[in-house]
Amino acid sequence: MREIKIGLIGFGTVGSGVVRILQENSSLIGQRLGGQIVLNKIADLDLARERDVVVPTDIMTSDATTLIDDPDISIVLELIGGIEPARTFILKAFERGKHVVTANKALLALHGAEIFAASQRHGARIGFEASVGGGIPIIRSLREGLVANKIISIFGVLNGTSNYILTKMTAEGRRFRDVLKEAQQRGYAEADPSLDVEGIDAAHKLAILASLAFGVPVDFEKVFVEGISRITPLDIQYSLEFGYRIKLLAIGKGDEEKVELRVHPTMVPSNHLLSTIDGIFNAIYVTGDAVGPTMFYGQGAGGLPTGSAVVSDLVDICRDTLKDAKKPTLSLTPLWSREGRALKDMEEVVTPYYLRFTALDRPGVLSKISGILGGRNISIASVIQKGRRGKGTVPIVMMTHEAKEKDVRQALREIDRLDVIKAKTTLIRVEGAVT
Amino acid sequence: MREIKIGLIGFGTVGSGVVRILQENSSLIGQRLGGQIVLNKIADLDLARERDVVVPTDIMTSDATTLIDDPDISIVLELIGGIEPARTFILKAFERGKHVVTANKALLALHGAEIFAASQRHGARIGFEASVGGGIPIIRSLREGLVANKIISIFGVLNGTSNYILTKMTAEGRRFRDVLKEAQQRGYAEADPSLDVEGIDAAHKLAILASLAFGVPVDFEKVFVEGISRITPLDIQYSLEFGYRIKLLAIGKGDEEKVELRVHPTMVPSNHLLSTIDGIFNAIYVTGDAVGPTMFYGQGAGGLPTGSAVVSDLVDICRDTLKDAKKPTLSLTPLWSREGRALKDMEEVVTPYYLRFTALDRPGVLSKISGILGGRNISIASVIQKGRRGKGTVPIVMMTHEAKEKDVRQALREIDRLDVIKAKTTLIRVEGAVT
Repeated sequence: MREIKIGLIGFGTVGSGVVRILQENSSLIGQRLGGQIVLNKIADLDLARERDVVVPTDIMTSDATTLIDDPDISIVLELIGGIEPARTFILKAFERGKHVVTANKALLALHGAEIFAASQRHGARIGFEASVGGGIPIIRSLREGLVANKIISIFGVLNGTSNYILTKMTAEGRRFRDVLKEAQQRGYAEADPSLDVEGIDAAHKLAILASLAFGVPVDFEKVFVEGISRITPLDIQYSLEFGYRIKLLAIGKGDEEKVELRVHPTMVPSNHLLSTIDGIFNAIYVTGDAVGPTMFYGQGAGGLPTGSAVVSDLVDICRDTLKDAKKPTLSLTPLWSREGRALKDMEEVVTPYYLRFTALDRPGVLSKISGILGGRNISIASVIQKGRRGKGTVPIVMMTHEAKEKDVRQALREIDRLDVIKAKTTLIRVEGAVT
Repeated sequence: MREIKIGLIGFGTVGSGVVRILQENSSLIGQRLGGQIVLNKIADLDLARERDVVVPTDIMTSDATTLIDDPDISIVLELIGGIEPARTFILKAFERGKHVVTANKALLALHGAEIFAASQRHGARIGFEASVGGGIPIIRSLREGLVANKIISIFGVLNGTSNYILTKMTAEGRRFRDVLKEAQQRGYAEADPSLDVEGIDAAHKLAILASLAFGVPVDFEKVFVEGISRITPLDIQYSLEFGYRIKLLAIGKGDEEKVELRVHPTMVPSNHLLSTIDGIFNAIYVTGDAVGPTMFYGQGAGGLPTGSAVVSDLVDICRDTLKDAKKPTLSLTPLWSREGRALKDMEEVVTPYYLRFTALDRPGVLSKISGILGGRNISIASVIQKGRRGKGTVPIVMMTHEAKEKDVRQALREIDRLDVIKAKTTLIRVEGAVT
């Protein structure tokens, strides 16, 4: 059986998961592939750390460059994360004629254009299934399984930490900061949680999915991002009353002319599948013009699930190698150069809105608010106004029909300047019919 | 741009879906593939029928053999369904050195061993993504996306007609035969519905999935099959009381020694994702040793969703062709010869059971029943016995702990012979913890 030698850079959680899979399922993977994957070298700065897998010490090195320079190694796994030195390692590997598998969503979201161009230039392949949705084969499904489709929309629950926090807040009526603290104690949230709870991690992943789904260049800067830290138990309670659940959704939609990409807390109808995705799970709801709605669900993080995705890319590249393909599979990298559409500015986005005003309990307040909304072409679908709450203010809660983000922002600026409004108005975007 | 010429046999619902996708998304698919797919010939016995796509009449023929013999055509789509002449067409296409894409689950379930062996012998590829789950890329996901995993279990809602009927029965408390009649009127069920409602179609699909997931030969005869026609509103009502929904599940489980494959009405916990898959949708819940639980969801039938899967296989084979691979991708066909395990006999299966006895309302009945169950090592988890129902009989409903199918069958034979038992006892298998 032919052997293919690989090198692993980064022996942390995901790296250990990959090693464990390659060890435990070695014969199964060998049979399925029709060849043997041999882990030739592992590079990590920390050679001493206790890990839950055992590898021969003589394949360990603290110098990633010797691994990249090793002529025996034909595929390099980059699993250190972060921008540098990961970026330099990957570019160097391409220069040495090696294929690369990475789980690095931040790097691809910020430097994808450079990385993909280098991969094409050197006729090398880059696998990045592990960069989105952990073990869920969503990259492969978009690229191959749904290749016949114009993708109409993507709705993703892509960040397990945020989803865990929102799930807990909804089930237990607790405040964001309390649940975050508990999540940090349990290891479900980082000490600095901002990448997760501010939506940045989900936006990285959306940028990658969008490049495959809509043929737009990976450009993280163009993705609108808003996190979950300002969501209150009061808003969750109202959303339930209206028949919705609040999720941090990564949304991508494409029409003939433009593509919109945004990550923000979103009210999703309670009877929709996506609203039932709880805890640390991820799901991506993709609608194509031929296939209709589809959904892909699984664990979005963790060493073994993410390792499962890394090894699937590895096997894919090995298959190409074993087939002695004359040409590498270049067309499997994103194709934005050939089918690019402009990105929609967030102010152009049209969607229904949930608005919560904090107003003095005086006659005429509702009329003032609805007058300003009406003047901006924002029509109200329903209103909830309940009895007094302390300090003389009451929450006035509205669901609007579809309105333009720009109009809503202008109206809220005007409304929040009114004497009778006592706090910044809360806005949550709504997916009325997630199709 | 290089052209790849293909031929289509069978211009019905799925065939028309494929043609429409190839017409409408032609340039998109061409860009993604890096080559142009040209539909060179269409064979169908009915050349006159009105179809919702228009094709040049000079590519139509009523003689499939001329299509298969056409040296320009390198890929044949078999979309006529049924066993013959589909089987002969596919084998002939292989002999002529052509690759084949098919949506024919019955053929693969019954003659898969022959078809796959012929494909290997001739170095030809066979794509069958469309044979299971319509447009859901489940074949690809099992074969490639989850290639790193030992598959532990598969739970599939694989038959839209049965799922539609059970969903309606549950929502509206109606009887099987009434909902079936309505489904037939609406075109959701065939005039002869037995393939669907008796579980045979789902078993065909399970046989195919199992060959990829567990490495067992496709062998439909070995799959235990039980349909939904004997499910009553009473059982649905009790299942809801116990916190379950009844689904027609296709179940595959593998341990170190054996694989069990069965299709039957199954009680699924109401809080499990699978219990929320309603109407004509399909879902496959797959658990792998590395990836953990995953789920794949979408429309399981229809011309465009199924066409989406056919075209994805077509593009896949075209990519190989355009890469000038020296060796075809043989290892992508199922590998049962290399990792076969024995199939478990249904009598060996261990699972919890729901049992509904129709008993005379007399003292000592419960004691007799539970005595017989206890004697067969079947322990009772809970019992519901309500007041009198007409004719002096009462339903006695039990959930058991895990028990062996063989023991349960023997106990029920004994119980159903008791004087106090007035109807055949209803048995529904339960997935206590679908993981």
